[in-house]
Amino acid sequence: MLLRRVVHNTSSIRFYSSMTLQPLPKPARFAQTPKDVWSLINEAAAASEEASGKKVVNLGQGFFSYSPPQFAIDAAKKALDVPALNQYSPTRGRPSLLKAVSDAYSPYFGRTLDPASEIVITAGANEGMYAAFTAFLNPGDEVIVFEPFFDQYISNIELPGGKVVYVPLHPPKDSQHTSSAANWSLDIAEFEAAITPKTKMIVVNTPQNPTGKVFSKEELTQIGELAVKHNLIVLSDEVYDRLYFEPFTRIATLNEALARLTLTVGSAGKIFAATGWRVGWLIGNPDLIKYVAAAHTRICFCVNSPLQEASAQALIQAQTNSYYDDTIASIKKKHELLNSAFEYLGLPYSQAQGGFFVLVNFSKVKIPADYAFPSDLDGRAKDFRTAYWLIKEVGVVAIPPTEFFIPEHAHLAEDYLRFAVCKDDDLLEEAVERLKGLKKYIE
Amino acid sequence: MLLRRVVHNTSSIRFYSSMTLQPLPKPARFAQTPKDVWSLINEAAAASEEASGKKVVNLGQGFFSYSPPQFAIDAAKKALDVPALNQYSPTRGRPSLLKAVSDAYSPYFGRTLDPASEIVITAGANEGMYAAFTAFLNPGDEVIVFEPFFDQYISNIELPGGKVVYVPLHPPKDSQHTSSAANWSLDIAEFEAAITPKTKMIVVNTPQNPTGKVFSKEELTQIGELAVKHNLIVLSDEVYDRLYFEPFTRIATLNEALARLTLTVGSAGKIFAATGWRVGWLIGNPDLIKYVAAAHTRICFCVNSPLQEASAQALIQAQTNSYYDDTIASIKKKHELLNSAFEYLGLPYSQAQGGFFVLVNFSKVKIPADYAFPSDLDGRAKDFRTAYWLIKEVGVVAIPPTEFFIPEHAHLAEDYLRFAVCKDDDLLEEAVERLKGLKKYIE
Repeated sequence: MLLRRVVHNTSSIRFYSSMTLQPLPKPARFAQTPKDVWSLINEAAAASEEASGKKVVNLGQGFFSYSPPQFAIDAAKKALDVPALNQYSPTRGRPSLLKAVSDAYSPYFGRTLDPASEIVITAGANEGMYAAFTAFLNPGDEVIVFEPFFDQYISNIELPGGKVVYVPLHPPKDSQHTSSAANWSLDIAEFEAAITPKTKMIVVNTPQNPTGKVFSKEELTQIGELAVKHNLIVLSDEVYDRLYFEPFTRIATLNEALARLTLTVGSAGKIFAATGWRVGWLIGNPDLIKYVAAAHTRICFCVNSPLQEASAQALIQAQTNSYYDDTIASIKKKHELLNSAFEYLGLPYSQAQGGFFVLVNFSKVKIPADYAFPSDLDGRAKDFRTAYWLIKEVGVVAIPPTEFFIPEHAHLAEDYLRFAVCKDDDLLEEAVERLKGLKKYIE
Repeated sequence: MLLRRVVHNTSSIRFYSSMTLQPLPKPARFAQTPKDVWSLINEAAAASEEASGKKVVNLGQGFFSYSPPQFAIDAAKKALDVPALNQYSPTRGRPSLLKAVSDAYSPYFGRTLDPASEIVITAGANEGMYAAFTAFLNPGDEVIVFEPFFDQYISNIELPGGKVVYVPLHPPKDSQHTSSAANWSLDIAEFEAAITPKTKMIVVNTPQNPTGKVFSKEELTQIGELAVKHNLIVLSDEVYDRLYFEPFTRIATLNEALARLTLTVGSAGKIFAATGWRVGWLIGNPDLIKYVAAAHTRICFCVNSPLQEASAQALIQAQTNSYYDDTIASIKKKHELLNSAFEYLGLPYSQAQGGFFVLVNFSKVKIPADYAFPSDLDGRAKDFRTAYWLIKEVGVVAIPPTEFFIPEHAHLAEDYLRFAVCKDDDLLEEAVERLKGLKKYIE
């Protein structure tokens, strides 16, 4: 047998720094990697726990604190017992999952989606979107993204050489009273003005992260008319498509011209509380999907097989059990539970129309003027300081939403914090108790 | 509830072809996608089964016909029961797996690998290598790849704009007698001549697919000297690193200068007969790994969590059980079993030094001159016709290795076929029986 014990124990820093050689080959990309919001906030939370000895309640990142439904777990375990389900899948996805996605989504499209040509399974929605940008973007091509945006869009567009053009959603005009997330509004003239001859794609996200907005049929029709007029590919991120509390429209289903140009993004991870399974899909015109599939094959080759099979079986079972309705009812209750704290405090928030995020206006909360913030937060918008203070003061973690705007538009969101409600009820109850303690900082 | 039945049932072809609109936006890449070897061969195999009513024995693609070891399956099932193990992992990998990789590999590196900075977990070795190319290649940068090559390398390099420079391994000088795969030889002068000021990386693969060659310490030392001299990043694909029958050297461990420039690629899928788990890793200098990790975060965000955890537990258990030794013994026996057919036929083959492929010289097999081949094979090298004929004549699937050479070098391999032995013994026995039927085509 080969040696199995460590002989020397030089630290990696000493090991590499002892060498005096040519400078290392330079990276082509990522020369600058500023600290992302997730690292900043998670580090602040960890530091706070260490200093106070008290666990924080993390309503920051949008992962579930609970397990996928038992029928999905059972399907995954069963898949692991089949030899072939531990080996490579076809690059476009397992036939069982392609069929299950077709069966689950064909009703919304009003015709049978062809599993072989209109669907591709990807390593999460993220890799699917990245594959689409890689397939279609030439360096310099422009992609319109609405702010606030899911931050991965930006690097996914820029990596293959695309340029992001930002169009903001404007916060509710009456920001001092709670109102529907529908009031985060798109100025369609602003959108149209952003379209140039270089625009190739637009990204729509509905239900939207982080506003909780569900784009109305009228809004999507207006967006869609401009997309068709300018022949733009619509990448419609609908990963929260099973989680809406008001009528939800899929842009691809509005008319045939839009169906032809739209790539609809879905996620088994979001549907089945399994963000760590990394199973997503894109649905669309075979003449678009084939290029996404070609990129995906090079990027990842194929998606992990056991959890593809589990997702297929879960989709099949969810067609006939009450999972979708139960989930909507459960998440709606979680929204209400958390929002009770903001009601108590008199803090205005956006009532989510879908998804599991809520944006809350903290402008009434008066942080002591002499509060000492770490230098990491220098140059960041006000919401970063509010989030930091909230962690330290009451032990609740939220995300500063200006991270999802470009600096020029950050002022639109600097009064807000984003909370995720996809957490166990006891965690939410603890958060509510702690948040109520903010009363003394509100005049 | 929303409509759950299909209303119309228009085929997707009719649906999309009915529209007369602007031409679809063009893809930036993949405008030409010729039929790959896997599709060609798999389609030929399926057609043959349909025509003959007889199952083929598929020794083509390198997936396992059997399950991962039970301790790995059990670990996966256990992981599924933990809520957090169904959610996102840290983008660089689960701490448990980073630690397990460090524990498993530190002995070979002669010092403790730092889990936090010297390792990144990727969605299979493929995505890890793609992330490395994406991180380091500027458009026009050159990467040296030895032929025959694993075909995904090429698109992985070209997608971020890299240019592949090919250096062939030459077949055994005495190709008419069985000899060690070591005799597939690199002309080091040819390698040095291929290095230009634009060369940024080289790809080494040992144990090598498809030759079965394990690069000797001397060969790696020569390659490594040139890499250090020209300051090239060495991407060392060692996914078959637990499967060698002769001394195996890791290029990163030769000296400190090479350790500094090498990214070592590993794969839980190859180690644990779980190619469908999509769990791999890169090990290397923190100042290289950080850029790979940055690219990986954008491409995939993170790797699926349950199978990361299962891979961690499997690595831990394999440190103390006899899995690695048992696997080597089992695969060696499979090589011997399949090779008995070629011994019987008097067909020379390369005795694999590692991995689970064998290259067999079919030049003595006389295919009837008037045999009718499909037009798909027009313009392909002779081995494509041999592979097609083998499927039709005896029902055994092998891969034509000229697919792993550029056309100018295809003549080096056109007499050969590649067989995978990572299959159940009864399949291999059936293959042996069928292959013996070739006797009548050998003079």
